[in-house]
Amino acid sequence: MTSTATIADLSTARDVARQLRVDSVRASTSAGSGHPTSSMSAADLLAVLVTRHFKYDWDDPANDANDHLIFSKGHASPLLYSVFKAVGVVSDEELMTGYRRFGQRLEGHPTPVLPWVDVATGSLGQGLPDGVGVALAGRYLDEVPYRVWVLCGDSEMAEGSMWEALDKAAYYRLSNLIAIVDVNRLGQSGPTELQWDLDAYARRAESFGARVIMIDGHDLDEIDQALQSATDRTDDRPTVILARTLKGRGFSEVENLEGWHGKPLPKEMADRAIRELGGESSLTVRGPRPVTEPPANRGAPLGGPPELPTYAVGDKVATRKAYGDALTAVGGSNPRIVALDGEVGNSTFSEEFAKAFGDRYFEMYIAEQQMVAAAVGLSVRRYIPFASTFAAFLSRAYDFIRMASISRADIRLVGSHAGVEIGADGPSQMALEDLAMLRAVQGSTVLYPSDAVCATALVRSMVDLPGVSYLRTTRGAYPVLYEAGESFPIGGSKVLRSGPSDAVTLIGAGVTLHQCLAAANALAADGIQARVIDLYSVKPIDTATLSDAVAATEGRIVVAEDHHPEGGLGSAVADALLAAGSPALRMSHLAVRELPGSGSTAEQLAAQGIDADHIAASARALTS
Amino acid sequence: MTSTATIADLSTARDVARQLRVDSVRASTSAGSGHPTSSMSAADLLAVLVTRHFKYDWDDPANDANDHLIFSKGHASPLLYSVFKAVGVVSDEELMTGYRRFGQRLEGHPTPVLPWVDVATGSLGQGLPDGVGVALAGRYLDEVPYRVWVLCGDSEMAEGSMWEALDKAAYYRLSNLIAIVDVNRLGQSGPTELQWDLDAYARRAESFGARVIMIDGHDLDEIDQALQSATDRTDDRPTVILARTLKGRGFSEVENLEGWHGKPLPKEMADRAIRELGGESSLTVRGPRPVTEPPANRGAPLGGPPELPTYAVGDKVATRKAYGDALTAVGGSNPRIVALDGEVGNSTFSEEFAKAFGDRYFEMYIAEQQMVAAAVGLSVRRYIPFASTFAAFLSRAYDFIRMASISRADIRLVGSHAGVEIGADGPSQMALEDLAMLRAVQGSTVLYPSDAVCATALVRSMVDLPGVSYLRTTRGAYPVLYEAGESFPIGGSKVLRSGPSDAVTLIGAGVTLHQCLAAANALAADGIQARVIDLYSVKPIDTATLSDAVAATEGRIVVAEDHHPEGGLGSAVADALLAAGSPALRMSHLAVRELPGSGSTAEQLAAQGIDADHIAASARALTS
Repeated sequence: MTSTATIADLSTARDVARQLRVDSVRASTSAGSGHPTSSMSAADLLAVLVTRHFKYDWDDPANDANDHLIFSKGHASPLLYSVFKAVGVVSDEELMTGYRRFGQRLEGHPTPVLPWVDVATGSLGQGLPDGVGVALAGRYLDEVPYRVWVLCGDSEMAEGSMWEALDKAAYYRLSNLIAIVDVNRLGQSGPTELQWDLDAYARRAESFGARVIMIDGHDLDEIDQALQSATDRTDDRPTVILARTLKGRGFSEVENLEGWHGKPLPKEMADRAIRELGGESSLTVRGPRPVTEPPANRGAPLGGPPELPTYAVGDKVATRKAYGDALTAVGGSNPRIVALDGEVGNSTFSEEFAKAFGDRYFEMYIAEQQMVAAAVGLSVRRYIPFASTFAAFLSRAYDFIRMASISRADIRLVGSHAGVEIGADGPSQMALEDLAMLRAVQGSTVLYPSDAVCATALVRSMVDLPGVSYLRTTRGAYPVLYEAGESFPIGGSKVLRSGPSDAVTLIGAGVTLHQCLAAANALAADGIQARVIDLYSVKPIDTATLSDAVAATEGRIVVAEDHHPEGGLGSAVADALLAAGSPALRMSHLAVRELPGSGSTAEQLAAQGIDADHIAASARALTS
Repeated sequence: MTSTATIADLSTARDVARQLRVDSVRASTSAGSGHPTSSMSAADLLAVLVTRHFKYDWDDPANDANDHLIFSKGHASPLLYSVFKAVGVVSDEELMTGYRRFGQRLEGHPTPVLPWVDVATGSLGQGLPDGVGVALAGRYLDEVPYRVWVLCGDSEMAEGSMWEALDKAAYYRLSNLIAIVDVNRLGQSGPTELQWDLDAYARRAESFGARVIMIDGHDLDEIDQALQSATDRTDDRPTVILARTLKGRGFSEVENLEGWHGKPLPKEMADRAIRELGGESSLTVRGPRPVTEPPANRGAPLGGPPELPTYAVGDKVATRKAYGDALTAVGGSNPRIVALDGEVGNSTFSEEFAKAFGDRYFEMYIAEQQMVAAAVGLSVRRYIPFASTFAAFLSRAYDFIRMASISRADIRLVGSHAGVEIGADGPSQMALEDLAMLRAVQGSTVLYPSDAVCATALVRSMVDLPGVSYLRTTRGAYPVLYEAGESFPIGGSKVLRSGPSDAVTLIGAGVTLHQCLAAANALAADGIQARVIDLYSVKPIDTATLSDAVAATEGRIVVAEDHHPEGGLGSAVADALLAAGSPALRMSHLAVRELPGSGSTAEQLAAQGIDADHIAASARALTS
């Protein structure tokens, strides 16, 4: 039976629900792992949604008018993939032989290797925040009436990020966002905190500004009415549907029992389950198609290439200020560029963009997890998000950044106030782990400009960068080093001092590059010539230039960084040179090794041994 | 005027409040930075609290009966330090010459270098979660009736972690926890999301299970009654006092105005402010003392040294299982050991401890930020917390881990399911950044056992480790390698194969160590002798053994790790050898470089090039 033109009736939805349960059992048993019971609890919800309410052109997942479906409870992947079978885009054979297998696209938790999946989920509490980003795009940028449906687990409501999401959904009046919470009462290791206290969930969701509908998640009429009501948009609030369900619903041997989380049914149990559920089937039923609207007019650039801000060599300009200038410049020429901030836009200078393009700026207040998730969601709709806060506070969102890379999301993160350079505010405000954190993200790009000209060039490059890219900016104002128009390719570096008699190589970025230059001057006064490298591209790294310098200076290098010694500039240099098979190195690695306190920038740099004096002393020791 | 024996009257509190404002202005102006206006809004709250309700023996901060005071809005440090002056433990001279100065203890944001400060704050949204940990200790472990007072900002209520905290405070019925929210309406860059909508805050806090009291935060009578009511403990809920306040209260030129966040008053404005506030003073007023009770009887070990579990060489045991076994063993001999988990105790095996010592186990459900914060809070009360979840999900709490190191907290983190080894679940569940993340934490210890005997020994060592320590455990069961009783010092390593004709060194930990052993066998069959090093202590690292091996094998080393290439084993080895000034290295670094999907363990290891075959091939290439 195939029905693509008309809306299925509830009786058909019931058949589909049965099939989703059977297929969830079959797929996970065939794979030998997976979460059938967590799928069975939500099968009725998905059957009614997909056959009757979810507007999606399954033949064209790129259709801009399509609704979005995000499984925030990503472990219910058997259910999602069974849905894909039920709408006819995944075959029964693929479901039975591809699920959780090597090299296959039906991964243990959904990722966008599948064209119908927007974002990777599986780290709980992220799908709803991601959905907020997609819904922001729908309401404010695309201005297309697609809806964003997010299936949430009840366990994940313990994550603060879910409440950040509801808070922002309400604040931004995202009536196009519908969270369906599968309240099946049982978590991984036992009952959830609130079990079936739907009233408690309801009070919380309402207090955060959502419209709440409570239903029996196995009553198809109730489900249908709730989904209909959610899309009627009677007000400007996001909708939270709280569905009371039974984990393992439909198979009496596991239904509502503890001890069956994340366990496939053994073959014989699976056979009994399939019998009890009514047997295998291969219905194909599609729901409503979206009404295709003319695409929003945000695709074409407003003008030619951006006119980047210019700065005079020698002028003191903070790279964070240059970030704000550059973002505003590129934003003027590309209407798909959007910006977000964690309520510190007057420190990161994203406020410049906000003032120029308020309709493309989203204030996330102090909710860094939601900020990164919103960037991911905006990238789903092919916007070009730049998200900024103090670099130290990006650590708040590390799980979201990690998952963004698995989502293949193209997002740009900007962290200001790096390192001890900030001075008096003390260690809580100092990013000293951010380079390690961002370098370790798969496929990431890590950039660290030392002057305003470089910063603006890198911002322009980030517009087109795939994956997670990161720009580290500095609080203080330092002299502009480069002429306007200088090129800063990703993966490059700049040799600022060099000569035939170089005895040592000094490597820095950000504030330490300026210290390296001062050290080189001091060394030159002593008759020691030093090569100086601006390592603005930390990942990818310019191995060739580093290797040349090492060869020229007989292995003597000093790396100075305003970061802990692990995973930052020094590690990047060491990793690159060792991978290149460099000859013997005599590397002096200056980094922030002690827990800092307050003080002036100069005091901080001196105390940690990363200022010009220490760099020069290390160079002298290497060359003596 | 000094009054240490009696409770000050409200008129005295009023004088103190005035002084706190004046001193907040003076301190920040003298330092040239800081947050006077954020201090002035809460001065009345603190004056009434400290003079009339906060039970604290200022002459003995170590008194176990003392109340606790946590400034979750750590940027209000001028207020906190002015309080310290008002109770006579910090001199006016220190306040005026020490605040935010290099080498001084009155840092820009409070840290425990001060004996009256429990935890470092300044990353917003962490003080209240930390306070939950302290309150858990009070209610369930110390059984001492101290109260935990937390001054919160209104901006930080946008952090999901604050709601994780209230959720857990209500779940654990922490009536000893009182959050005072200074609702001054203005954030850093503009009005807060909810501004003065105290009703909205109240609905949220009540829905999360708190008792809410709304007051005018500048009406001393209302404040006094609220604080009294909060400590009457009429029920089993935490209390949230919502105080409507004015930022910059008391100085007409800044009061309730935007643009004054985080800015000291210029000298002339400060002079006018001090005049308007009534002039300088140096009152010393102390509030009530705690009633000292006999210490809870949890100090002395229950018995002798723990009997660690034993395993037979060759038996297959997962290190995560060994963690559960060992934690239960050490828990039996030391009643100060407590455990927490993020609702995956049946995966991390913390459930073994929970079953044995339910009164010392705290289920944090899926709230990793709160889990780490609770560990920090428990450590404030000198408990020995072990907090476990999937290693991947510790990334959720990175900002909390970073701040724990600044808090000088002794906490133990345990992450299971490391790397692609987990197989079918896919990348969302695979920790591939955790070693980089934890190594980059100041003062951290990073451990990665390859067998059950090592895991148990490391757990025992972690009991006494200072700072943030981390144990990475593996999902699968692998052969036990060591005899019971083998010693595994922190900072050590094990040479499992070595001989006079070693041609290459193979270095691994966890699953890759087993692959290294298999590779060594294969190489031996080819006549290539390989040294094999078990790098169970990743930080600190056994540089001496590594250097010896490099020398013995003429610089030829293969490092294989189930982690991204940045910041993990390979970086640790490279950093150590370069710091030691090793001779030329020929290092082959095998790591997880591609985004993984699902598959079996063997398929995953092979696909990423970190299995025995690839290790052997790299070794052959180095030795050919």
